[in-house]
Amino acid sequence: MSAAEIGVGMWGYGFMGRTHANAYRQVRHLPGAHAARPRQLVIGGRDGEAARQAAATYGFARHASDWREIVADPEVQLFDNSAWHDVHEEPCIAAAQAGKHVLCEKPLALDADAGRRMLAAVERAGVQHMVAFNYRFAPAVRRARELIAAGQLGEVRRIHVCYFQDHQADASLPSPWGGRSQTGVLDGLGSHAIDLARFLVGEIESVTADIRTFIPERGAGAGSRERIAMTEDDAFSAQVAFSAGALGVLEAAWVYAGSKNALRFEVNGSEGSLSWNLEDLNHLHFNRVPSGSGDPGGTRSLLVTDRGDPYVGAWWPPGHVLGWEHLHANLVAAFVDAIATGEPVAPWGATFADGLRAIEVAEAIRRSAASGRRETVGPPSIGARS
Amino acid sequence: MSAAEIGVGMWGYGFMGRTHANAYRQVRHLPGAHAARPRQLVIGGRDGEAARQAAATYGFARHASDWREIVADPEVQLFDNSAWHDVHEEPCIAAAQAGKHVLCEKPLALDADAGRRMLAAVERAGVQHMVAFNYRFAPAVRRARELIAAGQLGEVRRIHVCYFQDHQADASLPSPWGGRSQTGVLDGLGSHAIDLARFLVGEIESVTADIRTFIPERGAGAGSRERIAMTEDDAFSAQVAFSAGALGVLEAAWVYAGSKNALRFEVNGSEGSLSWNLEDLNHLHFNRVPSGSGDPGGTRSLLVTDRGDPYVGAWWPPGHVLGWEHLHANLVAAFVDAIATGEPVAPWGATFADGLRAIEVAEAIRRSAASGRRETVGPPSIGARS
Amino acid sequence: MSAAEIGVGMWGYGFMGRTHANAYRQVRHLPGAHAARPRQLVIGGRDGEAARQAAATYGFARHASDWREIVADPEVQLFDNSAWHDVHEEPCIAAAQAGKHVLCEKPLALDADAGRRMLAAVERAGVQHMVAFNYRFAPAVRRARELIAAGQLGEVRRIHVCYFQDHQADASLPSPWGGRSQTGVLDGLGSHAIDLARFLVGEIESVTADIRTFIPERGAGAGSRERIAMTEDDAFSAQVAFSAGALGVLEAAWVYAGSKNALRFEVNGSEGSLSWNLEDLNHLHFNRVPSGSGDPGGTRSLLVTDRGDPYVGAWWPPGHVLGWEHLHANLVAAFVDAIATGEPVAPWGATFADGLRAIEVAEAIRRSAASGRRETVGPPSIGARS
Amino acid sequence: MSAAEIGVGMWGYGFMGRTHANAYRQVRHLPGAHAARPRQLVIGGRDGEAARQAAATYGFARHASDWREIVADPEVQLFDNSAWHDVHEEPCIAAAQAGKHVLCEKPLALDADAGRRMLAAVERAGVQHMVAFNYRFAPAVRRARELIAAGQLGEVRRIHVCYFQDHQADASLPSPWGGRSQTGVLDGLGSHAIDLARFLVGEIESVTADIRTFIPERGAGAGSRERIAMTEDDAFSAQVAFSAGALGVLEAAWVYAGSKNALRFEVNGSEGSLSWNLEDLNHLHFNRVPSGSGDPGGTRSLLVTDRGDPYVGAWWPPGHVLGWEHLHANLVAAFVDAIATGEPVAPWGATFADGLRAIEVAEAIRRSAASGRRETVGPPSIGARS
Repeated sequence: MSAAEIGVGMWGYGFMGRTHANAYRQVRHLPGAHAARPRQLVIGGRDGEAARQAAATYGFARHASDWREIVADPEVQLFDNSAWHDVHEEPCIAAAQAGKHVLCEKPLALDADAGRRMLAAVERAGVQHMVAFNYRFAPAVRRARELIAAGQLGEVRRIHVCYFQDHQADASLPSPWGGRSQTGVLDGLGSHAIDLARFLVGEIESVTADIRTFIPERGAGAGSRERIAMTEDDAFSAQVAFSAGALGVLEAAWVYAGSKNALRFEVNGSEGSLSWNLEDLNHLHFNRVPSGSGDPGGTRSLLVTDRGDPYVGAWWPPGHVLGWEHLHANLVAAFVDAIATGEPVAPWGATFADGLRAIEVAEAIRRSAASGRRETVGPPSIGARS
Repeated sequence: MSAAEIGVGMWGYGFMGRTHANAYRQVRHLPGAHAARPRQLVIGGRDGEAARQAAATYGFARHASDWREIVADPEVQLFDNSAWHDVHEEPCIAAAQAGKHVLCEKPLALDADAGRRMLAAVERAGVQHMVAFNYRFAPAVRRARELIAAGQLGEVRRIHVCYFQDHQADASLPSPWGGRSQTGVLDGLGSHAIDLARFLVGEIESVTADIRTFIPERGAGAGSRERIAMTEDDAFSAQVAFSAGALGVLEAAWVYAGSKNALRFEVNGSEGSLSWNLEDLNHLHFNRVPSGSGDPGGTRSLLVTDRGDPYVGAWWPPGHVLGWEHLHANLVAAFVDAIATGEPVAPWGATFADGLRAIEVAEAIRRSAASGRRETVGPPSIGARS
Repeated sequence: MSAAEIGVGMWGYGFMGRTHANAYRQVRHLPGAHAARPRQLVIGGRDGEAARQAAATYGFARHASDWREIVADPEVQLFDNSAWHDVHEEPCIAAAQAGKHVLCEKPLALDADAGRRMLAAVERAGVQHMVAFNYRFAPAVRRARELIAAGQLGEVRRIHVCYFQDHQADASLPSPWGGRSQTGVLDGLGSHAIDLARFLVGEIESVTADIRTFIPERGAGAGSRERIAMTEDDAFSAQVAFSAGALGVLEAAWVYAGSKNALRFEVNGSEGSLSWNLEDLNHLHFNRVPSGSGDPGGTRSLLVTDRGDPYVGAWWPPGHVLGWEHLHANLVAAFVDAIATGEPVAPWGATFADGLRAIEVAEAIRRSAASGRRETVGPPSIGARS
Repeated sequence: MSAAEIGVGMWGYGFMGRTHANAYRQVRHLPGAHAARPRQLVIGGRDGEAARQAAATYGFARHASDWREIVADPEVQLFDNSAWHDVHEEPCIAAAQAGKHVLCEKPLALDADAGRRMLAAVERAGVQHMVAFNYRFAPAVRRARELIAAGQLGEVRRIHVCYFQDHQADASLPSPWGGRSQTGVLDGLGSHAIDLARFLVGEIESVTADIRTFIPERGAGAGSRERIAMTEDDAFSAQVAFSAGALGVLEAAWVYAGSKNALRFEVNGSEGSLSWNLEDLNHLHFNRVPSGSGDPGGTRSLLVTDRGDPYVGAWWPPGHVLGWEHLHANLVAAFVDAIATGEPVAPWGATFADGLRAIEVAEAIRRSAASGRRETVGPPSIGARS
């Protein structure tokens, strides 16, 4: 393999760690010429034995039980933080200061202030930075943005993005969190909805919102009789106003039975509309006012694996559909490419500025749910240009 | 035809007038035994010649150019007001005072105060009263309510209802209103969304909302060079909180390209979900947590024309699908039946109390859009029990 | 109502009789100018009391218990034979000889010889004639033919038409036929599939086929312990070759669980494809090779109620969908119009020549199922030009 | 990685070679305990330099330009023949004789006689053998077979399987084959349709069929003015009769515009039905007669990534959908597992006996298309028991 190699060090071997590891491996073995290929050097996490097993299973040369080892590793050029958001700030800032390019899972940080410190650090260090908003890398989603940018919808007037799962729907289930710091659905799933809305329609100016904890108490754990109070949100609904004039609705929940992984959007404009559902990720639905009497109009179901579609060249022939894991592979490929070429990851990839912006919107949603008033989000921080 | 006959007098011969006339005719000729059958006596409107033609075309014995003639007609038992909402109050109250049963198009009145006067009049007169919220009479919608009432969704946690059309999407079209009093989309389509949300999930306690007039100026009319300001809303988005704890989103617009007649809802509960789209009116989508290991789960597409479905006995064999006009026929049949039997139209049909409630919610939406705050709807008026 | 009136006399008051009666009534009351309107004069059937009730319920002036009365009625201009196919030949020929225009239910006759006699009679009499292949009058089906004729699919290479219901799927059900002459699924549903294939792709040259009676024995009737042999087919599958070179598959069954009224087709060409399902009758699915790099391709779902669609002017605004019964209304309107104007009902409507052709194809299917060989259909009879 | 390793040697580095290589790599790095993991030892093909590059890109330790090297390699336990079907027989037989387990791409051989020799060789050698009918390993397909086997459809009465692509639809495209031996659509795509029909419904007894070469002449190659005759089939349609009494329709074509990778099936029984489309591979549609008055019936869309679904444990959480490439990964995992455990690959995987049977059905289809008669397939060879 003669292309340049980008040494990768990962922190986190859980669900997201496995997903990122799989993505690096997929990208390394893609056919065709590439600016660079990732090299899986080291994976780490607090439990050294688990890290050792993860390294063996996922194909890393080494393992670590302290993120400082990875940040200090001279071969590591790309620091991938796939851990929970309460361990994002310090390792990412340290990695940037050590000159590593940084890819961080979402949400970027515990709050907007931490996010601003992280953004400042990567900008100061001049390294590439990305937040793992993987749904930007679904071919249908990228295609949607291209169609909007090309004016195919005319003036965008409305977007609805919701992300529904149902794994917490059953009130008899115990709390999914041990004693560990928790994340509600607004952070966990809502951050994806916020980012997609911004990716497709632009900046959000103000919000009104409602937040619910439908199940205020659960068992403490499997088999336990102890009951504990649940304080994290398990559903939210926000109405948003975009700077460009569009209306929006953002929602997320993990307590709505029947939705397995239903990240869905619908965008409506003066000349057309778009819709998508992650559970059917290879199809994008597109409607456009007929261009003349010979145009039958109608809503098109586009199987986005065809010639001209984003990413199709990298994978399989038209109609040989992709799965969920390929979105992370597309994301990782974009980040490795950005590192190799020095080109920005924006606008297709989300930078730390986008990650910060998603937190700022989430914080406005929380403020509005508490105040019962329309809350403005405030202007984007410097650098937050996607 | 030996069944009792209910003499019908209609005011209004436009689109809704034609729709109601068609419904009475369909219902009159349904096979099977019925408590009563409608008899098309008289149709009227301000333009006498047009009324004469409508009577001939739609099969009425007489025509009228003053609603007072119809209200005074001793053979008329059912007064049907299919005119615009600025001519609802006086004729409906007069009809009730004359002892006629009253069916009125939506929105019930120009404002909640007028609605309260109308409700008081019909209750005082002891006549049957109904608002033509025809979508309650879609077999799929009624089936949805039955499933919810039977607990098939568990605790209802969220509903989204939107009603989108696109006939005003193109800013180059002239104003659709002549010099006549206008109605925005909140009254025109939004009232249906509000009523469906109440029909399915119950009372709405508070709202936050945003309203848009996307096209602030249009040509005065076909061929005219004059430009006039458009003041009526052409889109709204509201977040609503239900008394029973559920979250809700209500929307309507006639400026979103690609939606012809897209009245859609999705209801999500702790154990199941439902969704529907008027453009595919014979199918209801239903999901429920599997009942055991032999139950494959999944989302069911129910073709609601089968044995056990609402209304199927009245129409065609299973799979011989219904169209939009049949919803009004089902509605009219229910009203005629209520008159003949003395049984209430509620809960399947909307009474004037429901019509009033839809106005009260719409007014709260307007207040919130102006104030930027959560606005409460207030308790239902006496009689508003569906 | 000033337009000319066409006096209608109907023979048959069962399911099809009710359907036709409903269609005449709908057409009579359509708004707009028409060449003529039907007038419901007389309905008849062997049971005089049932005929009397049908006349009252469906709005006919008179009733009859002998078809000769109807044929002899000087006011009757249109003789509608909605009875079973074993009473088609004699009344239709007599009606033609009496100068009546003749509309006959499908299948046209018991066999091709009878069909030829009927075709000869109507041609000799010079009257308008039509077979009630109502699915030609679904807006989506007519639109499909228009798209094919306009070359939108390029060279047509394949069609699949199937018509599946499930009311006979359960082997524990008694025989649906009393002592009366029976009709199998090839005649009952298959004739529709054959006609649609011809309507869309043209003449069928040869067939190979298989026929099944999956349930060879049933109870004699509700509550009876007697078992009777079932000799009629309840499923068939045929491969057909079209004169123009296309391949085809035709199927029908009423023993496939899960299909309520699933008349479906898919047409595939060198440049595009079409598909449709009667259970979702307002949508036509259409795919076409992209016309250039700006064309996203994809499969369009056309809601065929829009400006430019067939029949939309006669009914409701775009998106206000039609139901199954409207197909018969469209059919009846076309026949009344043909009578008033003298214009041919072909190619949109099926003539007796088309009805005969459907029988000839069905007979070839039966021959092939018996012989195990490819059987040719033979050239169309004179007049059989659609 | 402590599990046993199975040394893999592959012959063929084209599209299928890349697909298999990807599958081995995915399977090697799956988390969880496994009986064995594949080890990518050597990949080969006639062009040594291309083989060298393939080894580097896809992660094989060595490369080869003669299949004999691979067959002779003592570390190779699994010989994977991903080459064209004209180089299947000799290498597979040699590999079996050398004691290697053999995985071979479809169609198994150039004709049934060759297939019988291959089957005899692997049975004599006592090695595991498999044909790469990857669609058996789609979770929805396996689930379909489980539902049928559990009697959920009652008596199976009909199956339709078609496999349509459109890459050869345009007659102006040059011949896709250089001077190389060709394969028509019956071998290329039809073999998958035949195998799926057998997998779901059992043995095929007889067929009637039609075959078409719609484009009899093409340009010889890109840029060439030479025209060459095209002799290979580009569409076929067959009616089949199953031993168990069901009717069937099998079709394949690559000249039907609008189908990218549309392998579809529908199975209809006395109590239920199933349908699937590879372009939407994560959803299986399932209908079953309601079990009682509380069962709403309807057609279920099952997102087959849920607890209890085949393969879900190996991949991602429910709703995190799979792509086309995962079917080969599931297939390879099953073969490696069979080698490690000594358990049979049947019935979930296709053995050489299944591969032979697919050829025998294809040959009957060719005979029938030539004779115009129903042709019997003949009894399965010894060993052909799935």
